[in-house]
Amino acid sequence: MEHETDVCIVGAGYAGLTAARRLTGVGKSVIVLEARDRVGGRVWTQSYDGFRLDFGGTFLGPDQDAVRKLVSEFGLETFPTNYEGEKVMAIDGATRRYGGLIPKLSVGAIGSLGVGMARLDAMAKKVPLDAPWADPRSRRWDQQSAGAWLNRHAHVPVGRQLLGATVRGVMCCDPSEVSLLHFLYLIRSANGLSNLLSTKGGYQQDQLVGGAQSMANAIAEDLGPSLLLQTPARSITREDAGVRVTADGDVSVRAGHVIVAIPPSLAAQLHFDPPLPTEKAQLLDRMPAGSVLKMLAVYDDAFWRADGLAGETVGADSPIEMTLDGSPPSGRPGIIMGFAFGPYARQLGALSDDERRTTVLAEYARRFGPRASNPADYFDHEWANEPWSRGGMMSRWAPGTITQFGAALRTPVGRIHWAGTETATVSHGTIDGAIRSGERAALEVVETS
Amino acid sequence: MEHETDVCIVGAGYAGLTAARRLTGVGKSVIVLEARDRVGGRVWTQSYDGFRLDFGGTFLGPDQDAVRKLVSEFGLETFPTNYEGEKVMAIDGATRRYGGLIPKLSVGAIGSLGVGMARLDAMAKKVPLDAPWADPRSRRWDQQSAGAWLNRHAHVPVGRQLLGATVRGVMCCDPSEVSLLHFLYLIRSANGLSNLLSTKGGYQQDQLVGGAQSMANAIAEDLGPSLLLQTPARSITREDAGVRVTADGDVSVRAGHVIVAIPPSLAAQLHFDPPLPTEKAQLLDRMPAGSVLKMLAVYDDAFWRADGLAGETVGADSPIEMTLDGSPPSGRPGIIMGFAFGPYARQLGALSDDERRTTVLAEYARRFGPRASNPADYFDHEWANEPWSRGGMMSRWAPGTITQFGAALRTPVGRIHWAGTETATVSHGTIDGAIRSGERAALEVVETS
Repeated sequence: MEHETDVCIVGAGYAGLTAARRLTGVGKSVIVLEARDRVGGRVWTQSYDGFRLDFGGTFLGPDQDAVRKLVSEFGLETFPTNYEGEKVMAIDGATRRYGGLIPKLSVGAIGSLGVGMARLDAMAKKVPLDAPWADPRSRRWDQQSAGAWLNRHAHVPVGRQLLGATVRGVMCCDPSEVSLLHFLYLIRSANGLSNLLSTKGGYQQDQLVGGAQSMANAIAEDLGPSLLLQTPARSITREDAGVRVTADGDVSVRAGHVIVAIPPSLAAQLHFDPPLPTEKAQLLDRMPAGSVLKMLAVYDDAFWRADGLAGETVGADSPIEMTLDGSPPSGRPGIIMGFAFGPYARQLGALSDDERRTTVLAEYARRFGPRASNPADYFDHEWANEPWSRGGMMSRWAPGTITQFGAALRTPVGRIHWAGTETATVSHGTIDGAIRSGERAALEVVETS
Repeated sequence: MEHETDVCIVGAGYAGLTAARRLTGVGKSVIVLEARDRVGGRVWTQSYDGFRLDFGGTFLGPDQDAVRKLVSEFGLETFPTNYEGEKVMAIDGATRRYGGLIPKLSVGAIGSLGVGMARLDAMAKKVPLDAPWADPRSRRWDQQSAGAWLNRHAHVPVGRQLLGATVRGVMCCDPSEVSLLHFLYLIRSANGLSNLLSTKGGYQQDQLVGGAQSMANAIAEDLGPSLLLQTPARSITREDAGVRVTADGDVSVRAGHVIVAIPPSLAAQLHFDPPLPTEKAQLLDRMPAGSVLKMLAVYDDAFWRADGLAGETVGADSPIEMTLDGSPPSGRPGIIMGFAFGPYARQLGALSDDERRTTVLAEYARRFGPRASNPADYFDHEWANEPWSRGGMMSRWAPGTITQFGAALRTPVGRIHWAGTETATVSHGTIDGAIRSGERAALEVVETS
């Protein structure tokens, strides 16, 4: 199958779909190649008994203008993630209720945590979003892992554990695997650690009524036959007048430009002819994605709310380091979303399905009471097991990577352009970031064609 | 083209070739798939006017039994890398002659360097070669980059610079990019830093008279039509009775086993069906290779020897951090091999060919006198630009990688076995290590078939 088009887009996650939408909006023709049998990429919604379950990216923050603009273009609705009620912290084999962002702990632990967070916020303010590699201060932060920094600066074990949970939670890897600079960059990109970690007023504030994938489906519908599912791209050849992209099923696309909108370690698997510039190839080899296991227990109703609980918990003595309330405002059904990140995702992932379900529900029961052990349904999903994501939630910069190879992050290679939430400056690592990256790449194409 | 064979081997570097030789030696049939139009992988010899030039792996140490055994099987000859004469250190814009392993420096710098080296050696002795990930002490060392360790423990700038040069030299990357544990592992694998860095009695002691690739060519000759050049493997499918490997040119190989003997970031580009276990896939995504630029200046004779110089130099104020004498014992022709590693390789690589030649020869002249600026010929090669190596000299463990994913390093996945110098315990990262890994993988196959 031979296609001729203005722009070929590899990947139908929010980055690729947005690029396609913006380009068709200004009269460009596109062909979107997607490996999976669905759109959305690391966003994946399953319908469930009149409601929906989000197994991947889920949330919209209040200041995330790009995704909100798209939501309003499609006339879609959001609802606030439940935040009313007390939170629960599981620690030292016990549970404690608390309000606010930081759990009630010993004065020393609170101090350690508070000082650590303030230091991180203060450092993050100095990280430039556009080109952190060009800033001389960045190098010091890029030389060390976030884990090494925590070991040196967070002396109280509980504080270190909770700051470590924060790194694991946003980076989906052990803190030793990620550059301190990347963690700071993410904080800066979110306008502060509090935004990054908060439900009300923060990154976890809202959800789409139809599920996070619903808007991707709506974009895909508009694209019609320009979108080819189950068609993984395999090679990109630069030619005099443009590019040729080949994909499974003998698909060949000639285009003026190509936008690569897949995670870096998948882009590294494409065959480029001529080969990519060395710095770009090496960058793609240095941005692996982590592990994230999302565990959804579905109940008839959000019974914890009647007990004064928000559904939000932190686990300092458990691989389930975080839960949130995933239920609709009505609380029917009730959904507890649990998360295990990096090494903990692998620890739980190594269990049999039955063992994992039992382990997770026992932990939910500890935090929410005995009713939690008998859900109507239980599901979980580990993104590192997905060959077409190769990890979640986003790819990270290992120490020493971005100060050396960062200039290649967004720079087009001839007519090859790069999108994906990994290339976003604002809302880096989120759905909003993916959308912004798609808009930026579309603009690049328009400006150079 | 359909092939049926006992064992398919992906990659005809020393790991794959050795595996093929050992397997055919016990009566197994093999098919070796090689992407390039030559064998040797990261070892590449060009003939030059009756002599030879080695652009990749070059050296054999005295205790490297596996490679020496193979050398004697083929009746090949080696010669000692010239070590007689004084070494030169380029520092602070000047040059100084010295003997021994460590240059003459200020007492403080010598102390810093000596203490640093002794500490590294002492730590390295505690790293187990077989399964460093299973040793609790390893985790602390894996949490930090070698660069962060140097920043904290090498306080005198010259000492830090020279220890940094050591890390760059053996890892081909900025010290911030590599786990301290990997650097220690390499030291342990070499039986000490002194072995790793030395010419006489150490890793750089000998060279093959016919060039490092000559023995690979001899193995290839014995393999005859079992070796397919210019046939890059693309996919590995596990089937009930074995594996199916496909490659360019419509090549399809059915085999009882496959040995993957290519660098990790190239193995990560293969399409596996069913997908690799997540830990293996994630490990392959986390072992990028570095940059190494090798610069060969060829003179009528090794004129520096008459001047009492060994040809060995260290550059503390130059991107060319090391040179060695690459000439035959006769000193005719005379060859200076210069090396730039990691960021310095990229710095020199960014110059035009002419600028780079001029820069390199000016630096050679500074260290060896004005005659060095007029070689009969000049060549250089950057391994990171090679799509079928994707970097050199070997792949490294980023911080946090091996203690989490190390168990997947050599563990077969069904009938898929893993070779390559990256999987070697003894002589990790060398030609000898590659050969040992091929022998180990061949033995695995024999024992399980």
